[in-house]
Amino acid sequence: MKTMTYKLILLRHGHSEWNAKNLFTGWVDVDLNDQGREEAVRGGELLVENEILPDVLYTSLLKRAINTANMALDKADRGWIPVKRDWRLNERHYGALQGKDKAQTLAEFGEEQFMEWRRSYDTPPPPLSDDSEFSQAHDVRYKDLGDALPRTECLKDVLVRLLPYWESDIKEDLKAGKTVLVTAHGNSLRALVKHLDGISDDAIAGLNIPTGIPLVYELDEDFQPINPGGTYLDPDAAAQAILAVANQGKK
Amino acid sequence: MKTMTYKLILLRHGHSEWNAKNLFTGWVDVDLNDQGREEAVRGGELLVENEILPDVLYTSLLKRAINTANMALDKADRGWIPVKRDWRLNERHYGALQGKDKAQTLAEFGEEQFMEWRRSYDTPPPPLSDDSEFSQAHDVRYKDLGDALPRTECLKDVLVRLLPYWESDIKEDLKAGKTVLVTAHGNSLRALVKHLDGISDDAIAGLNIPTGIPLVYELDEDFQPINPGGTYLDPDAAAQAILAVANQGKK
Repeated sequence: MKTMTYKLILLRHGHSEWNAKNLFTGWVDVDLNDQGREEAVRGGELLVENEILPDVLYTSLLKRAINTANMALDKADRGWIPVKRDWRLNERHYGALQGKDKAQTLAEFGEEQFMEWRRSYDTPPPPLSDDSEFSQAHDVRYKDLGDALPRTECLKDVLVRLLPYWESDIKEDLKAGKTVLVTAHGNSLRALVKHLDGISDDAIAGLNIPTGIPLVYELDEDFQPINPGGTYLDPDAAAQAILAVANQGKK
Repeated sequence: MKTMTYKLILLRHGHSEWNAKNLFTGWVDVDLNDQGREEAVRGGELLVENEILPDVLYTSLLKRAINTANMALDKADRGWIPVKRDWRLNERHYGALQGKDKAQTLAEFGEEQFMEWRRSYDTPPPPLSDDSEFSQAHDVRYKDLGDALPRTECLKDVLVRLLPYWESDIKEDLKAGKTVLVTAHGNSLRALVKHLDGISDDAIAGLNIPTGIPLVYELDEDFQPINPGGTYLDPDAAAQAILAVANQGKK
């Protein structure tokens, strides 16, 4: 008996201008840099080489994810597929750390506090003031959120806002038999992977998702991964990149 | 008493690889060339300079329109707006002329027949065979169309397939108070402008819409233009480009 399976592709946006500067980004709408644009095109090539072509695209409202998706899909000749954008796929809001230098923050607050903000499941950084130049309180794209607009988030907060959207929209497209591409961010994708793979609150701290390499999940009828942890379309590059991300902030 | 008005922006995609080669394109999915990409970015700059920022994007399923929209919106920092794509915004299907050289077609069939195919309101070229390399009969993006997939179209056919979509979708977004950007093609935009401005079947032959220059319509509550003919955001460039398009195919 053949059972129905669902195909989900996760793609973390490529390097941005602030990755290169080693700044906390969060909801600040920073663009890709040249390396990030190359990664996006390579991501599209990997989809073609592996003959895994999405039928529908989901993105955050941030241009580094949107442009990654646009370039990857253009490369894969799938720019014409339907697009759904939602703030619930946005990166974790980094609170008062947004716009701050990572190395300077590490020096100022010490490694323990720094790593807790970066990697603990349920400790958000201090909230960002609405007066900050790095705030989104006056950004027109979020005007319908009202009080739901975050001023800071921990990974748990990201999961809490993401899961209802996964249930209401993304899963529905999967159920309809569509191959779904989700182009998003390090922490919104970590939250989704935590849910899919049933990773514990502690163990998720050690999980890094590399940029620009499509991560494919085959899901069974109960949306459980047939291939736990997913399958990177370029496993060697993924392994190298995971090491690099783990060392980030330690320069 | 203040009356409600609607704002509609039409944007014809920039020059494509086949514009440069002087080939009939129609539904063949040809990409922009460098000039076309520059036009797209300039289109986005014009939106910013005139402070006319779209709330929602409509595009065809053809990459020259999709990529024009992506680049213009990225330049205008509006890449995050919702997107709706539909085949009913596609260029006119050019039938058996798709992929043919314009000058060669002119020489082969004579100016009268050539101009009738290009400019008459209700004479389609001969249909394109499904076996042609320039056919879309086996293109996955149109698989839901079934028998509705055109094999050739005159401008009237374009209007007939476009108007129901205008009524059901685009007008609804305008009614909701949204500024709508429609990024499409020479003939799908001519069809829409014919409808908006009430242009006769004969007079529409003389109307050319230049590439890459946003054309803004202010519409009253009955969707009648307050500014008949619309307003180009770069009127001088538009006037020059209209002349150039009128001379196209006469080399």
